[in-house]
Amino acid sequence: MTPQDGARAVYRLGVLPSGATGGDARARALAVARESTLEVPAGVASPAIEADLLGRLVELRPEDDGSVHAVIDYPGGIFDGSLPQLLNVLHGNISLLPGVRLVDVELSEGLCRAFPGPRFGISGIRERAASDAVGRPMVAAALKPVGLETPELASLAAGFARAGIDVIKDDHGVTDQAPSRFDDRVQRVAEAVLDTNAATGGSTAYYVNVTGPLESLTQRVSRAEEAGCGGVLIAPGLMGLEAMRMLAAGPTALPIMAHPSRGDVGPDRDSGISPELWYGLLYRLVGADSVVYVNAGGRFAWSLDTCNALNRRLREPLGSLRPALPVPAGGVQADDAPEWFRRYGSDTLVLIGGSLLAQPDPEAAARALVDQARRVAVDGESSLA
Amino acid sequence: MTPQDGARAVYRLGVLPSGATGGDARARALAVARESTLEVPAGVASPAIEADLLGRLVELRPEDDGSVHAVIDYPGGIFDGSLPQLLNVLHGNISLLPGVRLVDVELSEGLCRAFPGPRFGISGIRERAASDAVGRPMVAAALKPVGLETPELASLAAGFARAGIDVIKDDHGVTDQAPSRFDDRVQRVAEAVLDTNAATGGSTAYYVNVTGPLESLTQRVSRAEEAGCGGVLIAPGLMGLEAMRMLAAGPTALPIMAHPSRGDVGPDRDSGISPELWYGLLYRLVGADSVVYVNAGGRFAWSLDTCNALNRRLREPLGSLRPALPVPAGGVQADDAPEWFRRYGSDTLVLIGGSLLAQPDPEAAARALVDQARRVAVDGESSLA
Repeated sequence: MTPQDGARAVYRLGVLPSGATGGDARARALAVARESTLEVPAGVASPAIEADLLGRLVELRPEDDGSVHAVIDYPGGIFDGSLPQLLNVLHGNISLLPGVRLVDVELSEGLCRAFPGPRFGISGIRERAASDAVGRPMVAAALKPVGLETPELASLAAGFARAGIDVIKDDHGVTDQAPSRFDDRVQRVAEAVLDTNAATGGSTAYYVNVTGPLESLTQRVSRAEEAGCGGVLIAPGLMGLEAMRMLAAGPTALPIMAHPSRGDVGPDRDSGISPELWYGLLYRLVGADSVVYVNAGGRFAWSLDTCNALNRRLREPLGSLRPALPVPAGGVQADDAPEWFRRYGSDTLVLIGGSLLAQPDPEAAARALVDQARRVAVDGESSLA
Repeated sequence: MTPQDGARAVYRLGVLPSGATGGDARARALAVARESTLEVPAGVASPAIEADLLGRLVELRPEDDGSVHAVIDYPGGIFDGSLPQLLNVLHGNISLLPGVRLVDVELSEGLCRAFPGPRFGISGIRERAASDAVGRPMVAAALKPVGLETPELASLAAGFARAGIDVIKDDHGVTDQAPSRFDDRVQRVAEAVLDTNAATGGSTAYYVNVTGPLESLTQRVSRAEEAGCGGVLIAPGLMGLEAMRMLAAGPTALPIMAHPSRGDVGPDRDSGISPELWYGLLYRLVGADSVVYVNAGGRFAWSLDTCNALNRRLREPLGSLRPALPVPAGGVQADDAPEWFRRYGSDTLVLIGGSLLAQPDPEAAARALVDQARRVAVDGESSLA
């Protein structure tokens, strides 16, 4: 990359012990800048290399909570246009240091151009959805639990399609186990959804889970296309973010939904990387059309601020890349869905998983949910976020 | 996988607030077992599925530090023989929960057989090394910093080869930047090392860094073989652990060295996964012949206990998989190397990176290091670990 095709990163350095001086924060920040780039002690690299490639500490900002934010600029020359090296510079060896958390990233336009971004994005997903899915939040449901046999999953999917659910996705833990092999499932569930759509005039999309061995990825996605799936689900934390990047940069003709399983992102941690960067910036950068995350009020106790920040990152301008669709999930209760529809607005796909399956009549409950999503559009203004 | 091809995992549940009862720990542990497997509320899955596939809480062990260890058995039927699903069950959605850390894993023999393990392992690497590398620790050096041009890297490598260094590796941040493109570097550095070996009778191995776009992996490894490299370096945290698994399971004829960049493993954390499991068990399981980690006393402040546990995991029996070679690194000082030789014993490859480059005469310093490693063998008993 050319020198101007760089990136700016902000790291939160954990609260220093009392008695520590600003100089300590400065020393730590300079160590981060060096570790992420040259990785040799001062004096080893030539002055030219130090000038051209060493991360540059731009600012140290004391925060109200006692932490210090270190703003570091990385020159374009340190990158090679690949995702692994981008990750390495932003949060590579640094991820092994205690008390250093990546909290903000700004990518240059040149760096953005090295990545595919969403092929469909929010508008593309909406175009493929029901004709009435304009100006309203969309609704997703999940096929689970693992252990159900393929005909049972197909029957569940047909019910959700009859109810008008926009996107039906496999559970990310339903992969290629004996009760439902991938090759069988992709055919029969897609067929059940297509047949239902034909009968009802609906356009429910089935996203099959292609998470699995890397060698099988291309073939599974081809099978999904041939079978008439509306998209694919992949868990980049399990297969590698690079696997999703490769998929998105390839000839795939299906929207990609990213699942959040396995991430070093807990909002409560003083290390790792913030969820809005990992899921909101990086997943979108490498090609997720929609991004599942664990919503506030669910089983994972993420804050509303975190979720709003994540939504913002997925939707805001980013070079010339398309916006991606937020998919709040992870224990969203069916009864609370209308609140989330209103709060997050129309550019959202609310995923109700286990709570829908726990209803006495999941199909009727799904129909009620879709009705509620339609009503949000009728009510007009949709976003409180 | 068959029901007996399962796994046992131990999670540390963080210190509970005062007043919390054992029942709270039990509820959290049961939630972990459910989240990792069925991922639906109790009552949704059929009794047969609950009996066959739900993770089973075996034991709750209060620890001296106030935490509780939850021992959970996962049945073979939840796995599909793939790495992504193994990761998903052991530490998938769980990674998003606060205060839950994966601290121990036992894999059944059947599950182990699904993975390649090291093709060469400790004995295979030793066979390819210098004829005197039997019964002594081995020594590695790094080519860096990024920004050096290929001829400079080749010259540095030739010096290390003359000094008798066992393994010369690229810095993991030296990838495909303008000063040293991969295709050029792999040829010229390998040639420099081979020529030096021919002149000295040595057998120094050059491990080129193949970390980069997934599409290029197979080609880069082929280039490395054609050029006469002795191995390849890959950072699975950046490319995906699955990328290394695929590489190791394929026709690669070169040893694989894994670099630790990007891991959710800090020993000080109450979430994530312990370094001895991530690097010591999983990297080995999926095919790393040698595993670089950040040593005690270096820039990353990991404890000696952690490093010893990691070494043990790499070397201990694991199904029928070969042992992998520990590579302590990350700020090991050249002066301290003899201590690490003695402490970690002969089945170790000690990597001295920046500290060697900071010496007035790196080649002479490298020669002194190799002499010290040879002396450990002469001294007899080598492992204090």
